[in-house]
Amino acid sequence: MKAIDGGVSAPAGFKAAGGKGGIRKSGKKDIALIFSERICNAAAVFTTNRLKAACVLVTSSHLRQTGGRLHGVVINSGNANALTGKQGLQDAREMAYTAARMLGAKRNHMAVCSTGIIGEMLPMEKVRHGIEQTVPLLSDSLKAGSQAAEAILTTDTTRKEFAVSLTLSDGRKVTIGGMTKGSGMISPKMAGLHATTLTFITTDAPVGTRYLQGCLEKFTDQTFNMISVDGDQSTNDTILLFSNGAAGGPEIRKDANFEEGLRRVMWELARKVALDGEGETKLLTVRVEGARNDRDASLAALSIIKSNLVKSAVFGGDPNVGRIASAIGNSGCTADFSRLEVCVGPCADVKIISNGLVTDQKKAAASFMKEREVTLTVRLNGGKGSATSMGCDLTYGYVRINSAYTT
Amino acid sequence: MKAIDGGVSAPAGFKAAGGKGGIRKSGKKDIALIFSERICNAAAVFTTNRLKAACVLVTSSHLRQTGGRLHGVVINSGNANALTGKQGLQDAREMAYTAARMLGAKRNHMAVCSTGIIGEMLPMEKVRHGIEQTVPLLSDSLKAGSQAAEAILTTDTTRKEFAVSLTLSDGRKVTIGGMTKGSGMISPKMAGLHATTLTFITTDAPVGTRYLQGCLEKFTDQTFNMISVDGDQSTNDTILLFSNGAAGGPEIRKDANFEEGLRRVMWELARKVALDGEGETKLLTVRVEGARNDRDASLAALSIIKSNLVKSAVFGGDPNVGRIASAIGNSGCTADFSRLEVCVGPCADVKIISNGLVTDQKKAAASFMKEREVTLTVRLNGGKGSATSMGCDLTYGYVRINSAYTT
Repeated sequence: MKAIDGGVSAPAGFKAAGGKGGIRKSGKKDIALIFSERICNAAAVFTTNRLKAACVLVTSSHLRQTGGRLHGVVINSGNANALTGKQGLQDAREMAYTAARMLGAKRNHMAVCSTGIIGEMLPMEKVRHGIEQTVPLLSDSLKAGSQAAEAILTTDTTRKEFAVSLTLSDGRKVTIGGMTKGSGMISPKMAGLHATTLTFITTDAPVGTRYLQGCLEKFTDQTFNMISVDGDQSTNDTILLFSNGAAGGPEIRKDANFEEGLRRVMWELARKVALDGEGETKLLTVRVEGARNDRDASLAALSIIKSNLVKSAVFGGDPNVGRIASAIGNSGCTADFSRLEVCVGPCADVKIISNGLVTDQKKAAASFMKEREVTLTVRLNGGKGSATSMGCDLTYGYVRINSAYTT
Repeated sequence: MKAIDGGVSAPAGFKAAGGKGGIRKSGKKDIALIFSERICNAAAVFTTNRLKAACVLVTSSHLRQTGGRLHGVVINSGNANALTGKQGLQDAREMAYTAARMLGAKRNHMAVCSTGIIGEMLPMEKVRHGIEQTVPLLSDSLKAGSQAAEAILTTDTTRKEFAVSLTLSDGRKVTIGGMTKGSGMISPKMAGLHATTLTFITTDAPVGTRYLQGCLEKFTDQTFNMISVDGDQSTNDTILLFSNGAAGGPEIRKDANFEEGLRRVMWELARKVALDGEGETKLLTVRVEGARNDRDASLAALSIIKSNLVKSAVFGGDPNVGRIASAIGNSGCTADFSRLEVCVGPCADVKIISNGLVTDQKKAAASFMKEREVTLTVRLNGGKGSATSMGCDLTYGYVRINSAYTT
């Protein structure tokens, strides 16, 4: 497996485009399209927030109606189409249908995603105009993929793409590419077919629908569901994974190389979201080892990454060890605190808690806490469970961005 | 019932004192004592954080040993005595024993509480010195109560006391007084005998231990467990409730007036904590009505009050209605969003969501969002459950205070 340039248009047979409908007040690109002429096996996970955006409901319904077969997706930024009642559902359907009609696809063979402000009706004239402007831009160039990746951003400061090429166990060469967006309202708990980060992954590998969905759910739990910017799960979180089989050959039912490649793409995309968290100045990675089981490890890793007190301390470069231990205590994870070890540094360089007691390494730890990327390693010494979470610091910038988002 | 001046020394037979041991680097008062010559029936709730401070373990153990009988409590600020292993337990015991010895009480008849930095050993010489200096200051004056209320503060900006006098159903006149502290690491989930806000309540009413504990648990759920400053539950949260019976007469087994008085004292003290949240510029109160049941209402009210996005919007005076609805969706509460109503203002003045859709009252709402105290009323229109939570905005000040607490 090797990382290659590009995103969703890197795999064979996938076209992409990013265009403008005038939905975003900034005048930036706000309509994105991904399209494959060959129909794809598609897998999806959506937000578990009980307030689901209209686009989430419409896309789930299309997937059910078609048995997981899609040609692509149309996406708008600037408006989440959530808390918009029946009108919102009608608008989401119309978005999908408009794109499908122009592309010569059946109308429920297109998915639809939105991201932006909650509680406002989609400006449908601008949306229609945007789709009409964007369809002619569809291209399989890497640049077109990048323009799509730009068009899905909101408060993000950079576009987020990643792709790998790899060789399947049987020797076939395939490509997996993805794009994502997300900066605030990031704390996904996405679950199978029912999880605002928007993420789109394409592959030319032919993959059976059931296996595709299984892989997506497993790796969502290990990647996107392990990141948190602010602990607030969105109403719109969606990952769509498309397999168009353009690489040829029989459908994959199980392939370790494919899984490794998909996991890598999802991990890198999730990392880019954490790195671009609203107001973020530092990436925080928390590795928990020695938990009773993986679930306990996840609980502890997520509790630390979500703690406002830990996040503020990371912003200040302050090795406030007590807050780390307290967050573990609040996580629901089983822990014998007299065996607790916590280290700071990319290679667990400095031990700040040993046998449940704070060490005298605070000064040495402080230098690692001041780095652009801060890594905490927590050893519970009570089993073999492990998990890694990613997030960012809580900063003046976060407060500034979020104290005046709609007005 | 009427509110009166004073705090823990307002009820008959309770003395209090606040003194200095030199534990807090600022040189502020850091040792507090509450003492009743008549032994008290005592009730307590403690943090449910699995990392419990040494003082929490020692006080629970004293309550078990004595069947809930105490003369009082010794408290230090500046150091939480948490994550301090066996030495911490020994130190907490010594604190209680030192106070008990000087006061002529049995050593397990004193409770012990700590608040401050986690992960440092108590400076026992200063603690001992502080207790020796403070015991002679014990007095039943209201001023002594206020000095105790000062000595338990950490990042708090004001001391927090409240007292009421009331008449029991049988005509006896009794007094309930309390003091509390808490500004950050505030998101209590305290539970019976096993819940860093420290709260101490005294009453001269004679109350049976079991009824006392029952009342304390019930009202903790309705008051302190409904406030959140930052979503981080402390390792030290404790409420101790002392009844010394100095008002005379038979023990109360059930009395509506007593319950009303106790609830009022706990509500006012909890409100003072929310009002003094770290970096707070606005008090946020969220009233949820029409939930399937009270538990669902609590889930929704707490989810809104804990949302960083809602808190940032309140700081900015921004009626970001979508975030409120999204927080309800994330709470686990059952809700039919097409029936959702949300109002802003102390008297539910302006409706910003009606039948699940955002209204055009954003401008009118914005003026209420800019007040010192912001009230949201959420009507789920799906049942009779209700709950009220209190918290504060997320501000630059919060980030500043918490980015450099230990260094």
